[in-house]
Amino acid sequence: MPNDGSVLIVGSVALDSLETPYGSAPDALGGSAVYASLACSLLAPVRLVGVVGSDYPAEGFELLRSRNIDLAGLQVVEGGRTFRWAGRYAGDLGAAETLSTDLNVFADFSPRLPPGHEATPYVFLANIQPSLQRQVLEQTTGPRLTMCDTMNLWLNTMPEQVGDMVGRVDIALMNDAEARQLTREPHLIAAAEKTLDLGARCVVVKKGEHGALVVTEAGCRFLPPFPTTRLVDTTGAGDTFAGGMIGHLARTGDLSTENLIRAAGIGAVLASITVEGLGVTALAHASLEEVQERYHVLGKCGHIPPLR
Amino acid sequence: MPNDGSVLIVGSVALDSLETPYGSAPDALGGSAVYASLACSLLAPVRLVGVVGSDYPAEGFELLRSRNIDLAGLQVVEGGRTFRWAGRYAGDLGAAETLSTDLNVFADFSPRLPPGHEATPYVFLANIQPSLQRQVLEQTTGPRLTMCDTMNLWLNTMPEQVGDMVGRVDIALMNDAEARQLTREPHLIAAAEKTLDLGARCVVVKKGEHGALVVTEAGCRFLPPFPTTRLVDTTGAGDTFAGGMIGHLARTGDLSTENLIRAAGIGAVLASITVEGLGVTALAHASLEEVQERYHVLGKCGHIPPLR
Repeated sequence: MPNDGSVLIVGSVALDSLETPYGSAPDALGGSAVYASLACSLLAPVRLVGVVGSDYPAEGFELLRSRNIDLAGLQVVEGGRTFRWAGRYAGDLGAAETLSTDLNVFADFSPRLPPGHEATPYVFLANIQPSLQRQVLEQTTGPRLTMCDTMNLWLNTMPEQVGDMVGRVDIALMNDAEARQLTREPHLIAAAEKTLDLGARCVVVKKGEHGALVVTEAGCRFLPPFPTTRLVDTTGAGDTFAGGMIGHLARTGDLSTENLIRAAGIGAVLASITVEGLGVTALAHASLEEVQERYHVLGKCGHIPPLR
Repeated sequence: MPNDGSVLIVGSVALDSLETPYGSAPDALGGSAVYASLACSLLAPVRLVGVVGSDYPAEGFELLRSRNIDLAGLQVVEGGRTFRWAGRYAGDLGAAETLSTDLNVFADFSPRLPPGHEATPYVFLANIQPSLQRQVLEQTTGPRLTMCDTMNLWLNTMPEQVGDMVGRVDIALMNDAEARQLTREPHLIAAAEKTLDLGARCVVVKKGEHGALVVTEAGCRFLPPFPTTRLVDTTGAGDTFAGGMIGHLARTGDLSTENLIRAAGIGAVLASITVEGLGVTALAHASLEEVQERYHVLGKCGHIPPLR
């Protein structure tokens, strides 16, 4: 396979029941691979790997296909039910309270890459069990760049496997609480540096309303949040960030530290679009032009003028 | 009085008993006016207004005088005891648990500006009761720039007076929880914008390890934290930030929005020095050169490269 700038994204494909102060939605399109793929597809060709049941709605397939997302790796289990998650947000939309999780077809998910997918140059292992992330990674042949996300569930139940995955990828994403939990280090920058010591080339700590911290051997860089105040639903913001980040890297082919910062900035502004709508609704209407405009605003928001 | 770039600082002068995971100190020099004055004095002449008892140690006077801080406004109550605060920090140094507060001479403090102090061009009302902040403000004659800080104690007990003070000054400082509490708005940027609506020209939200948010009519600006990992004691970090910010404004005389950002950056790097020592120990040894070097690093840490 040529280095065609494609991105392989493996993760959950879900139907989410969302309750927020600004609106509710039953069985909305969701899942880490869906948010990440929608974001990434604005920037680079996407190959999605996941599983759904035969109840997955036609609108889901249509939305993904409308963004030219390759669904050859999306298994459909006949007679099975799609993974469902229900969550509720309080006023600050900081963290969802999980009301229910029904793994359904996701419980027996064993990711298999279809022929031709193994050599995809960019690989994003979204939030699924670390052993499944590893299973996907082992099916790939020399990807140019790999990235993984994690979540507190796996840190609670299998911290060693999470640490192992962090050491196998180029870019490890986590949120601030997860970085602290993984390293048992309360100070965030120190926690990120200890995560880097596990083997990743770059650690990105997502901090929600506080932006993101990108740590490489060259040092720390802070990204402000995009200053939206139209906050509706933070579901999928981290997955969107990840999809945007790897999408920018695939689009540009530039893996320099400076371009990692740009990529994280693109992820941040895409996430700011996601949170302005319920579920994927705002993200589904995002355009590359809007993303680039927001990136420019982000740069201004973070600009510190030199002393005179 | 000429516009001589002096800064009037009113606030608490205290003896702090500190317990941190990295060391303890009984009766250490502390208080909002002391941290702010030490920081500010690196940049501009300071006139301190406060009160101590006759037990205030000689080393306190010496330290303040060594920085050329004008102590004409520091009342010494013969036979009185200096304000004392005892606090304990847990591992993340995020917020102190107050163990005891003995107001002592501070309980009857009625700030009076000595002759010549009324026309000081820059005025910082550090964390004291809002009615005392107002009492000082009413004794001044046409200051060029006024700034106030607050704390959750006054928001809990007299929120209207806090809101009133915010409307009387040019720059209102608070931390993130305080901005949310004052405006009853969970979203931080919206909370800062609502605080701006109360009448201040600029609202600075101090976010500790997440940096600071500066909001003016021109929009939002985010400052990253200076990436120190030598965190020892966060006491006085906010007061240091404030002293550095107004010190930079007084030193440069430039009140443009762009220079407000520089000033906040100077405050942020001075705060990063304070947290590296127990009490005022690190701040007491800071140099202007070190501050300027850290400012340069801060600018790099927040830099978002333009898209190509």
